[in-house]
Amino acid sequence: MTQPRNAVYAQSGGVTAVINATACGVIQECRVHPNLIKNVLAANNGIVGILREELFDTSVETDKDIEKLRFTPGGAFGSCRFKLKNPSAEDSIACRIFDVFKAHNVGYFFYNGGGDSQDTTNKISMLSKLFEYPLQCIGIPKTVDNDLANTDTCPGFGSVAKYIAIAVQEAGLDVRSMCDTSTKVFILEVMGRHAGWIAASGGLAGKTESDPPHVILFPEIAFDEASFLAKVAETVATYRHCVVVASEGVRDTDGKFLSDSGQRDSFGHIQLGGVAQKLAQVVTQKLGFKVHYAIADYLQRSARHIASQTDVDQAYAVGRVAVEAVLDGKTDRMVALKRLQDEPYRWEVITTPIGDVANKERRFPRSYISKDGFGITSSARRYLTPLIQGEAFPSFDAGLPQYVQLKNQLVARELPEFDVTV
Amino acid sequence: MTQPRNAVYAQSGGVTAVINATACGVIQECRVHPNLIKNVLAANNGIVGILREELFDTSVETDKDIEKLRFTPGGAFGSCRFKLKNPSAEDSIACRIFDVFKAHNVGYFFYNGGGDSQDTTNKISMLSKLFEYPLQCIGIPKTVDNDLANTDTCPGFGSVAKYIAIAVQEAGLDVRSMCDTSTKVFILEVMGRHAGWIAASGGLAGKTESDPPHVILFPEIAFDEASFLAKVAETVATYRHCVVVASEGVRDTDGKFLSDSGQRDSFGHIQLGGVAQKLAQVVTQKLGFKVHYAIADYLQRSARHIASQTDVDQAYAVGRVAVEAVLDGKTDRMVALKRLQDEPYRWEVITTPIGDVANKERRFPRSYISKDGFGITSSARRYLTPLIQGEAFPSFDAGLPQYVQLKNQLVARELPEFDVTV
Repeated sequence: MTQPRNAVYAQSGGVTAVINATACGVIQECRVHPNLIKNVLAANNGIVGILREELFDTSVETDKDIEKLRFTPGGAFGSCRFKLKNPSAEDSIACRIFDVFKAHNVGYFFYNGGGDSQDTTNKISMLSKLFEYPLQCIGIPKTVDNDLANTDTCPGFGSVAKYIAIAVQEAGLDVRSMCDTSTKVFILEVMGRHAGWIAASGGLAGKTESDPPHVILFPEIAFDEASFLAKVAETVATYRHCVVVASEGVRDTDGKFLSDSGQRDSFGHIQLGGVAQKLAQVVTQKLGFKVHYAIADYLQRSARHIASQTDVDQAYAVGRVAVEAVLDGKTDRMVALKRLQDEPYRWEVITTPIGDVANKERRFPRSYISKDGFGITSSARRYLTPLIQGEAFPSFDAGLPQYVQLKNQLVARELPEFDVTV
Repeated sequence: MTQPRNAVYAQSGGVTAVINATACGVIQECRVHPNLIKNVLAANNGIVGILREELFDTSVETDKDIEKLRFTPGGAFGSCRFKLKNPSAEDSIACRIFDVFKAHNVGYFFYNGGGDSQDTTNKISMLSKLFEYPLQCIGIPKTVDNDLANTDTCPGFGSVAKYIAIAVQEAGLDVRSMCDTSTKVFILEVMGRHAGWIAASGGLAGKTESDPPHVILFPEIAFDEASFLAKVAETVATYRHCVVVASEGVRDTDGKFLSDSGQRDSFGHIQLGGVAQKLAQVVTQKLGFKVHYAIADYLQRSARHIASQTDVDQAYAVGRVAVEAVLDGKTDRMVALKRLQDEPYRWEVITTPIGDVANKERRFPRSYISKDGFGITSSARRYLTPLIQGEAFPSFDAGLPQYVQLKNQLVARELPEFDVTV
């Protein structure tokens, strides 16, 4: 009989309101199979924690606390932005990963992240073959950007979509109340570096032409100041106010980001910010309207208090199915969501080759954007609507959500220290 | 027997998540006394709607829709920013108000707003005496800024406080997950032009020193860059990340707003914005940390989906008691909240002379701010905690809150048009 081996679970990239629901799914499912999976070691800060041999012993966490992960935003074990080089047996980083896996009898690797992170999963899988180390590697999807290939949606997105749709609905009622004597234009800046999925979700707030949002700015549509201003002016003339949802990734006709803060992250990606302010300036200067703007930033992706039940269910399910996949003998796969039907919405969890997912970005389709480039189509609505269904409220204590803080107790080190620069 | 007369109810100033709960209280209570109050005419956009003779006939609204106001953010009848001149019988604006009141048999005036709006209530009351027009004037408090005098709290504030505390809690978990390899500092810009009540409420998110927020910037404490940077650096050194809540009204040691957008509203107030960005720049440049920032803007004051039950109850109660006050023969009063006990929290609704409230601002007390100027004290916590208790969730349909849109049907005009510039 096979001896049970340990699993490593790690979180990578920007965290979400529901990534811990995935952690919950992984750990709960592993606990059901102690004969095959001895323990789940959760890496502190993704792959960086593996390199530093900082592995949390999840066996010390109570079942009750693990269940609370389902309701807690952020990354309970810490996340990271860290890119692996191309697989080579000479790479000290690569060697270290497998030294750590070997030292801790790791047979299963679950990496929970977006496109860059699935590249890491893929490389670790390739390295396991290079090193002839028996390892089953499963990628688990997560990204608010909803831009992973080969999955109908990405856990984390549905909750952001719900948050943004509600924010537009609520702030829209606010500005409509004020527009006759004060603010006429409200701009909400949302995440989405290259793909307009999040911006599009704001469109769910409106049922008719007159409802906010009146203008959506997608990264997929080149920003043209004149037509933007014409649309805002026309909207204010017709409806007295105008609500704009602007993706942080809006680019001008030369492909330059409307707002490049100058900062880069460790993947070399431009850190964006300030689109709303730029748009506000242009509206004030050219149209003379009073403008307010909000920047949702981390609030949108951490808003567990208003998470989508559908999203939480899917985040949990991909975690469980990742474990089922290794029990089925699978490796080199990413768990994915498949839509069976729009209405009533039905979905199932499948797996897809990890190599087909890594480093790909799924843009928001042009067919989901209205002809004038400022709104969403009924196809987009059909796609997005099921993802925001249901309210998975956390429990509250003394007015605030009850979020769990795990013990996060490190397992004893087996290896010397390893210097890793992040 | 007295013939029943009409009431005018109007909303003024920045709207809130619960101002419609007050409207609900006023209208429901008036409906109980048809022998004294014939109908509630709701002015379109506050005092401006009175001048324009734009009065909504609330009798056409169903009881069910009026009840739904309790759950709907924004101002259902529109709000305004409009300042009255000093009372004079020669002023055409003053005459017009009373022409409209006379034409529509208005005997009761309820003005629902903040400090500037209570000045309007007071002036209309003085004018009624000048014109010898029988009118009972009652101010009803509303302001997210919580800066009205003579009331323990202001309806609207508790819900913003809850929203900000939860935002800090959730975004704090996010940045903590990312801080070892990415963002170390997160800044949340909140409302509060002159008073730090909203910024302070972020402090409720943290129970211990290590919890966010680590730094709160109040308008009441002059901003000193060196000590701010030292505090951020020390926090990052100790806790690896730092969450800052910054009031939009933060001023430097010369009393100059850290960020003056250059715009003015119709009361001549400076429109603020961009504090978070300025702070982010200074942290990045001087400390080299990666920073993210969010600007909550209208999202914070319209977030009905996570309104405080206490706040909703109080907003509703001040509306009902305003009506009871006129039935008791009172005038020239503002309804106010009185705290009877901190824990368990007990409160009652009282009335206070309107002249004592108009144009006053209640600052956040120094005794509520910690010695170093960056946090809240236990007294502040004792004051704030009861205000965020309970979750008054709206009902949801297809993933979004169900907010009511009233018919807002104007009563027939009795008077010629009147030109009012806003």
